[in-house]
Amino acid sequence: MRIAIIGFGVVGQGLVEILQDKRETLRQQHTLDVQIVAVCDTAKGSVYHPQGLDAALSLQAVQSTGSLDSYPDVAGLVRGLDSLSTIRDTEADVIVETTWTDLETGEPAITHIRTAFQAGKHVVTSNKGPVALAYKELKALADAKGLLWGIEGTVMSGTPALRLGTTALAGCTIRAVRGILNGTTNFILTRMEDGATYAEALAEAQRLGYAEADPTADVEGYDALGKLLILAAVVLGHPVSARQVSRQGITHLTPQDIQRAKAQGKRWKLIAELQCTDDGVQARVAPQLVELSHPLAGVSGATNAITYITDLLGEVTLIGPGAGRRETGFALLADLLDIHRAIQRR
Amino acid sequence: MRIAIIGFGVVGQGLVEILQDKRETLRQQHTLDVQIVAVCDTAKGSVYHPQGLDAALSLQAVQSTGSLDSYPDVAGLVRGLDSLSTIRDTEADVIVETTWTDLETGEPAITHIRTAFQAGKHVVTSNKGPVALAYKELKALADAKGLLWGIEGTVMSGTPALRLGTTALAGCTIRAVRGILNGTTNFILTRMEDGATYAEALAEAQRLGYAEADPTADVEGYDALGKLLILAAVVLGHPVSARQVSRQGITHLTPQDIQRAKAQGKRWKLIAELQCTDDGVQARVAPQLVELSHPLAGVSGATNAITYITDLLGEVTLIGPGAGRRETGFALLADLLDIHRAIQRR
Repeated sequence: MRIAIIGFGVVGQGLVEILQDKRETLRQQHTLDVQIVAVCDTAKGSVYHPQGLDAALSLQAVQSTGSLDSYPDVAGLVRGLDSLSTIRDTEADVIVETTWTDLETGEPAITHIRTAFQAGKHVVTSNKGPVALAYKELKALADAKGLLWGIEGTVMSGTPALRLGTTALAGCTIRAVRGILNGTTNFILTRMEDGATYAEALAEAQRLGYAEADPTADVEGYDALGKLLILAAVVLGHPVSARQVSRQGITHLTPQDIQRAKAQGKRWKLIAELQCTDDGVQARVAPQLVELSHPLAGVSGATNAITYITDLLGEVTLIGPGAGRRETGFALLADLLDIHRAIQRR
Repeated sequence: MRIAIIGFGVVGQGLVEILQDKRETLRQQHTLDVQIVAVCDTAKGSVYHPQGLDAALSLQAVQSTGSLDSYPDVAGLVRGLDSLSTIRDTEADVIVETTWTDLETGEPAITHIRTAFQAGKHVVTSNKGPVALAYKELKALADAKGLLWGIEGTVMSGTPALRLGTTALAGCTIRAVRGILNGTTNFILTRMEDGATYAEALAEAQRLGYAEADPTADVEGYDALGKLLILAAVVLGHPVSARQVSRQGITHLTPQDIQRAKAQGKRWKLIAELQCTDDGVQARVAPQLVELSHPLAGVSGATNAITYITDLLGEVTLIGPGAGRRETGFALLADLLDIHRAIQRR
């Protein structure tokens, strides 16, 4: 399997590290042999070799100089291809789209993925934008071309939230989805329960790398909202738009609110929720009081969780990491393995 | 898809009810149309019709008279075939094995499943015996014949514990498995935390149908042990025998033990555990003190849970029902859907 990586940040590098570490296992247990033919990043430069790049050297270049320009010269190496040429004009069978997430336009990822499908290439991505905003269009294009689109990493990184909802629970009717889909806010709420103020907990989250310098996307619920859009489109088959989602963050919660809940044997959690109704799907992100006896109450720190409420099984809950270099890298690997199995069966 | 059901107890009837309720959905969303050609039960009799039985009438017969003998006479109906003839000599593509579980011999289910594979028929089962005791032999036979064997219902009923470990986490290395795999004991421990004595909690579990009149298999850890044998063979690929498993039940736990743990911010849980070591797999069933911050601590009542400890994702936990008529019926349906998809791809 030949891949081209578009966007070589934390996640793209994480995938390459995993592919290196697991080379033998993947070959022996899964007959999967991945060759990286191109890596292209707006900021870090672009290298392409028809016979494949050296994975270790590409990591070394970026990690020592911050740029792929320091990748050593070898015969046949092509430098400077832009992302669309890399997608269209290289021998990659699969495009790995790991550029930054933009939840307003979905770009440049939507264009990258559309271009890949038009060029007859499979795609795996951890980028929330295109799935939240253009799932229906892009999935239809992939289906029409007989191509596969791996998107597991867009909701809970490597924790298989989408596979659980779409494959493992197939045959059940999913009536509602409730999740703790943002690790930063869950970390802050957990620390506030331990006695910290909101400002202290946020500062700690920033120190640990869980929260950005501008924490708005997390603490105001936009990140969780983006994941709800994905779940609605992919798992429920009912796309909703951001405007249709009622959204409230955690910034108004006071230490008193947190302690009062604790005294009642409950916990505040930022819950992202989809409810199937006769008219479609209702979606909201808001802090909710969760009973301590519910599995979601036991999810502490930066961990994520999702509960599917189904007709035949009642509630099924999956708990695991929701972010991270290797965790999201694994999501991409799991998608590559799926594509590999599908290609083998053809 | 034509199926024959061997063993028409709670689970077999649960499957037939689901197939009836979901007939239209299965057809439209999954292109699956299931025809029941035979139902055979040692105690309740046996009916077979080459053109298919009436599902509603088979349920009605058993639920009103306790016997398939009251299934109405129609031209072409054959009565009284034994289980092996039903498996070998009817037009079923898939055998649904739902006879009683015997964790010492695995019979008669092992013979049923071996016979089915020898006759070129796929199998789905919720019977723990054959998977715990003869997975390697039966899986090799199925593989050699190009046949599929659905076993999801053998660990946590419809909660997809096996799919999570074998498919969704493929690409990760699983280093250990820890689970609350017996709902009866978890219910008893939860009630004891609320203040009940062991005897009171057991009596309540028996009243609610969670525990048998003879509760030994649950409270002494034999049921959880059987599920560990399945997980070792199926998920870790390292079969262990019952003799290699260290096993302790919950009968020695006193209300004082439970309250002391509570005072320490911990909980007693009957944990079934597999640890991968350099020499193979270590397996044990024993009550363990679990920190309240761990997801397994939040699993209360008859609910089950499993945690996979992996190299790339750390801990991933799945929580859901571990038993029940419709829940286990769903596990069989999920396996039938898998077989249907695989057949379509060929």
